[in-house]
Amino acid sequence: MLRKTKFNFPIIDMKTTIYATITSFLFLLGCQQAPETKEQPGTLEDINLPTAVLVIHGGAGTIKKENITPETEQAYREKMEEALRAGYEVLKDSGESCEAIMKAINVMEDSPLFNAGVGAVYTSTGENELDASIMRGNDRNAGSVAGIKTVKNPILAAYEVMVHSPHVMMAGQGAEQFASEQGLEIVDPSYFKTDRRKEQLERVQRVEKEYGTVGAVALDAAGNLCAGTSTGGMTNKKWGRIGDAPIIGAGTYANNATCGVSATGHGEYFIRSVSAYDVSALMQYKGYSVGQAAQEVIDKTYELGGEGGMITMDNQGHVSMPFSSQGMYRGYITAEGEVTIAIYKEE
Amino acid sequence: MLRKTKFNFPIIDMKTTIYATITSFLFLLGCQQAPETKEQPGTLEDINLPTAVLVIHGGAGTIKKENITPETEQAYREKMEEALRAGYEVLKDSGESCEAIMKAINVMEDSPLFNAGVGAVYTSTGENELDASIMRGNDRNAGSVAGIKTVKNPILAAYEVMVHSPHVMMAGQGAEQFASEQGLEIVDPSYFKTDRRKEQLERVQRVEKEYGTVGAVALDAAGNLCAGTSTGGMTNKKWGRIGDAPIIGAGTYANNATCGVSATGHGEYFIRSVSAYDVSALMQYKGYSVGQAAQEVIDKTYELGGEGGMITMDNQGHVSMPFSSQGMYRGYITAEGEVTIAIYKEE
Repeated sequence: MLRKTKFNFPIIDMKTTIYATITSFLFLLGCQQAPETKEQPGTLEDINLPTAVLVIHGGAGTIKKENITPETEQAYREKMEEALRAGYEVLKDSGESCEAIMKAINVMEDSPLFNAGVGAVYTSTGENELDASIMRGNDRNAGSVAGIKTVKNPILAAYEVMVHSPHVMMAGQGAEQFASEQGLEIVDPSYFKTDRRKEQLERVQRVEKEYGTVGAVALDAAGNLCAGTSTGGMTNKKWGRIGDAPIIGAGTYANNATCGVSATGHGEYFIRSVSAYDVSALMQYKGYSVGQAAQEVIDKTYELGGEGGMITMDNQGHVSMPFSSQGMYRGYITAEGEVTIAIYKEE
Repeated sequence: MLRKTKFNFPIIDMKTTIYATITSFLFLLGCQQAPETKEQPGTLEDINLPTAVLVIHGGAGTIKKENITPETEQAYREKMEEALRAGYEVLKDSGESCEAIMKAINVMEDSPLFNAGVGAVYTSTGENELDASIMRGNDRNAGSVAGIKTVKNPILAAYEVMVHSPHVMMAGQGAEQFASEQGLEIVDPSYFKTDRRKEQLERVQRVEKEYGTVGAVALDAAGNLCAGTSTGGMTNKKWGRIGDAPIIGAGTYANNATCGVSATGHGEYFIRSVSAYDVSALMQYKGYSVGQAAQEVIDKTYELGGEGGMITMDNQGHVSMPFSSQGMYRGYITAEGEVTIAIYKEE
C-alpha cells in the first residue's frame, strides 16, 4: 500500500540527501542574495503545487474547447484516466517508477486518440515513424529509439535499449532489429495507420500546429523518479527528421537529485533549448523550485520560437505542467488515487 | 585583419553584455558567498587560460607516446596544424565562425588519421555510419545528421540542416536525400573504408577504447561563437547506435552568452550527462569560468562512467580542453596565428 509520498522516502540515498540539502540552501540563497537574477514569480504558487505519484501528458497544441465535440473530449479524459490508473496500479504495489510510466504510456500508445503508437501522424511520404525515450533518476541511465516503423510500443523499445544494451540511442532498422531480438511485439507498418491521422496530414500540408507527443513522469515508493516520452513526431515531417522526444535532455530527463521531465511541443526549439535538462539545471544550480524552473524553461523556449509544454515532477512529488500553446492534454494521480485531468488553458 | 579578439567585440549585442555582466557578478558571488558548493580548483588557473580564435580536437582515447611512432605523431601534428590554419584563413578575413569550424573539420574529415569522414571506424556489420552536428551561438540555431553513409563531409550536411531546413536533426536515408538536394558531394559508401580502421575493428572486437571524434569551436570578429562535431561513431557499434556527436547539448553546444563546446568520448555517458550544455549551464547559472565548468563536467561525466574530453571556448576566446582519458588530440590558434598542438596528458 502506498502512503503519501511526501513523507515516505525510506530509500533515498545519502547523495540525494546531500543534494537536497544543498539545493534547499541554494534556494534560500537564491531568494535572499541574488537580486540580479530575474524575478521569481513561481515561488508563492509553488507552495501550493499539487503532489502526485504520476503525471502524464497527451500532447500540446491548438486545443480549444470550441473545436472539440463533447464526445471527443470525454474520450480523451477517459483514456487519460485509464492511463493514470494503469500506472498507479504499479506504484501502489511498490512497483518501480519506470514500470509505471511504461504502463501509462502504453495505454496512450494503444489509443488512436494520441500521436504515439497507433494513431501516429504521417510523414510527408505517408509513413509512420515513431520515436521514444526513457530516463530513470536513480542512476541516470537512459534509452531511446528514433525513426522506428514496426515496434508496437516504442516506449518499451526505449526501455530495452536502457536496460539491455550498452547504448543510449538507436535509430531506424538497427533499433527495430534490437527490439525484435529483445522479444518486443513487432507489427506491420500498416498497424499504425489511422484515417484520422491521414486526413490530418492532408490538412496539415496546409497549416495547423499540433504536438501530439505523450509522456509520463512517476515517483515510486523507493523515491526514484522516471520520465518517458513517446511520439509519432511532427505531421508531414521529411528527410528522416528527429524531434526532441527521443533526445535525452531535450524531450526527456530524470535525476533523483532534482526532477523528472517529459516535454511536448515544437521539437526543434526544445532541442536547441535543451529544455528537459534545463529544468534540472535551474533547480540544481540556481535553487529554483520545479514550478519556477519549468515555467522559466517554457518561457525561454517560447522566446526562442518554440511553442509547447512539459510535465515535471520534483523528487518530493510536486507537479508542474506549464505550456505556451492553447492547450495541453494533462493529468496526474495522487498517492491516494485521486485523479485530476485538464485540457484547456483556463483549467 | 583580425585584431586580438580579447579587446575586439564591436558587434556584441546588448543582451550579451547584460548576460556577461550578470555572469561576472555571479562569478564573484560564487567565489565569495557559496562555500557550500564544491571547491573550485580552476579559478586561479583560469586567469592563465590561453586565448584563441579557433580550437580543435581530433578525438580522445588511450593515446600514449609509447604506442605511436614518431612518424605517425608527426602526421597528426601536421594535419591538426593544417586544420587550424584552414579555419584561421576564414577568421582573419572577418569570416564567420561556422565557416571557420567547417573548414577546420573538413581537413580532418578528409584525412584517414581521424575517425570522421574518410577513415571512419566500422560498425559491427562492417559499414561506416557517420554523425555530425553544428550550433552557432548568436541565434542558437543548430543542425545535425545521424547514421549517414554517403555524404563526403558530414559537417556540411549538419550545416545545411541548420540553415536550409526547418529541422534540427535528420537521420539515415532521409538525411542523405536532403544533403543531396542541397548539392553536397555524395560518395559511394566504399569511399570511407580504410584498411587501418578495418584492422581496428578486428582488434576492438576484442578490447580497446578510442573515441576518435573530431570537433572545433571558433570565435569570429563579430563576437559569434560556433561549435561543431563530426564522427564515425564507436568502433563495432550495433543496431543503428547514435552517440553524443549529433546530439545538441550532449556533443555540441554554442551560446554567445557563455561558450562553445565540442565533446569526444564514451558518447552514452555524454548524452546522459548532457555534457556540452552543462558547461554553459554552469557558467550561466553558477558563474563558473569556462575552465571550471568544463573541468567539472568532465569530472562528473567520468564519475558517471564516461571517459573522454572536450574543447571549450568562452565568449572572450578563453580556451579550456580537459579530458579524463590518456590523451586527446587537441590544438588552438591565436588571433596572431600562433599554433599550439598537444596530444598526451603531460603536454
